[in-house]
Formats: sequence, C-alpha cells, structure tokens
Amino acid sequence: MDITKFVENSLGQWRSQRSSHNLALTYFEQVTSTIDIVPLAKDDSKVIDLCKSNEIDPQMVSHPFRMSWEGESDWDEGETFEGTTILVPVPEPDNPQAGRLLRDQGYAETIPAIGKYHFSEDGTFVLLTAYDRAAAEEKIWFVNPNLRMRVSLIKTSGGSGVLTASFSSEIRS
Amino acid sequence: MDITKFVENSLGQWRSQRSSHNLALTYFEQVTSTIDIVPLAKDDSKVIDLCKSNEIDPQMVSHPFRMSWEGESDWDEGETFEGTTILVPVPEPDNPQAGRLLRDQGYAETIPAIGKYHFSEDGTFVLLTAYDRAAAEEKIWFVNPNLRMRVSLIKTSGGSGVLTASFSSEIRS
Repeated sequence: MDITKFVENSLGQWRSQRSSHNLALTYFEQVTSTIDIVPLAKDDSKVIDLCKSNEIDPQMVSHPFRMSWEGESDWDEGETFEGTTILVPVPEPDNPQAGRLLRDQGYAETIPAIGKYHFSEDGTFVLLTAYDRAAAEEKIWFVNPNLRMRVSLIKTSGGSGVLTASFSSEIRS
Repeated sequence: MDITKFVENSLGQWRSQRSSHNLALTYFEQVTSTIDIVPLAKDDSKVIDLCKSNEIDPQMVSHPFRMSWEGESDWDEGETFEGTTILVPVPEPDNPQAGRLLRDQGYAETIPAIGKYHFSEDGTFVLLTAYDRAAAEEKIWFVNPNLRMRVSLIKTSGGSGVLTASFSSEIRS
C-alpha cells in the first residue's frame, strides 16, 4: 500500500458510524455522518497555499484531496454539524510507504497541522499528529473496497495518557 | 510479539467500553463491562478436555486462560449479562507468531470454535474464526500496558459481507 492507492481507494462518498469513548469518564458518543472525499489538483491554489505556509515544495506533493463531512451526534439531538478540510500528502522522496500529511485544520483542534504517516505491513495507514496540547494517533484500513475502518486516539501531548478512543465504520454510499 | 507475551500482558481485570455498529441498519449498541483474564494450568481438566475434543496434543498448548465478563448494554437498561470462556492457544511448532486458538464457546455463537491467529509486524493479534453461518475477524493491540484495543468484525460465512463491526477500549482496573 502507498499513498497513491490509499487516496484513490478513499475517494467517493461514505456513510460513517462513529463511536467515541471518553476513557476517564466512561462516556460514549455516537455520531452518524456523510463524508465526501474528492481529489484536488496539485496546482489548486489552496494546495499551493498550504505548501507555502509549511515551507514545502509543491512539486513534492502527491494526491491532495478535500474531505467534507456533515452529520449528527447523539449528544445534540436534532443539531447537525459540518466541516471541511484539505489534506496534502508529501511522501518521503526515497520511501513511498511514509511521509507527511499537511492539513489546513485538524480533527482534535481546529488549527493547521502536520502529521507523519506510514503504512504498516498489512496496509494500515497510521498517522501521528502532534498538537500544542495533545497528540493524535489514527489508524485507517480497508476491510474491502467498500468498507473502511478508522481508530483514532487523542493523547496527552506527552503521549502517556489516552483521553479519547474513537472508532468509525465507513461504508461507501 | 508472541502468544506468551500477549497472554501475560492481558492477564488481570479490565474495564471495557464496547460500541457495536450494525452496518446494514446503522444501529449502535453500547456496552460497559468488567473483564477478568486469569491463567489456567496446562493440566487443568478443562484444558485437557478441550484439547481432546479438538484432537490436539495437550503438550502443544501454551498459556491457556479463562476470560469472564459481566456488564450491561444500553439495549437492556438495568439488565446485566455475564459469561465465561476458556481459551487455549496452540502455537505452530515452527512459528511462534502464529497458531490456533481453541475456545469452549465463541463470542458470535455459543458453540466451541477453533480460530487461527497470527501477530502482525506491529504486534497486533489477529484472530480469524469460521463458524457455521458466519466468520469473525478480531484485532487486538496494546496502546500501552494498561490500555488494550479490540476491533471485531462479524462477516457472512463467505466473508464477503460485514454484518457488525465493534470496538472495545479496555483499561486495566
């Protein structure tokens, strides 16, 4: 697995069920959402801007994409939320299995972030992102071409404590 | 990672949050439970019996254990459930990273089962179990010594369709 194939497999519309576990308080949250993943051109101005603000040569970018979501949580009955983010993979020049992922906003905090990704032997995409006051570890893998699994951990910035563990099942619409 | 270290790391009492996703109907189920994992002797009569009924030489067994659980689901407010099962790993003689796992009853169906396990490069325990009318795929990994993650898929017996995906966060008590 490499980032080209992973992004291509991810394109499209997905119906997502997400469960979050607050580990300290044993709280559950349930979220249903629709996720759209669409490719962007390497010379899209937003991609270029994100490269510039991270001092990355736009020539090094591979398969940038936009992810948008719209859904609702059982914590806010009747209320919907939505969001969108641009993601720009920057593979290592000498290792197609690993690289950096630029985002114009993160999940855990609504600020830009640079994560480090790699693919494990079994094809799982593993993304580590350090924020100011927290760190996120995300694993994404395909069970089949129409079913994607995602496990996300939000840790304290030192990485010792896990605050939240969440799990998404994403079915291609 | 091998089965010796994995079982030793798993011994103790765990507080579990489990979320199940019914993928066809977009249902959620939330379960909280306490799980106890205790070692058994290789010459425990129940271990010997399970070997005999599976025509396994008891000398090939490594680190058998009992897993018990007690909890409640948000589908049955106020009702508790409990259960116990004996698990007997049988590593391959020439490959400590893989083997079979005997159980006197399964999760998906309350009948005895033999699963096949292996450890992936990153230390994840992967267990595949075929039942008469379904197949289960389970991944278990440690985030740290006191936090275990478990993702379970229940598939149609042909393996093509995934019926249920569930996720457990298990914290050492």
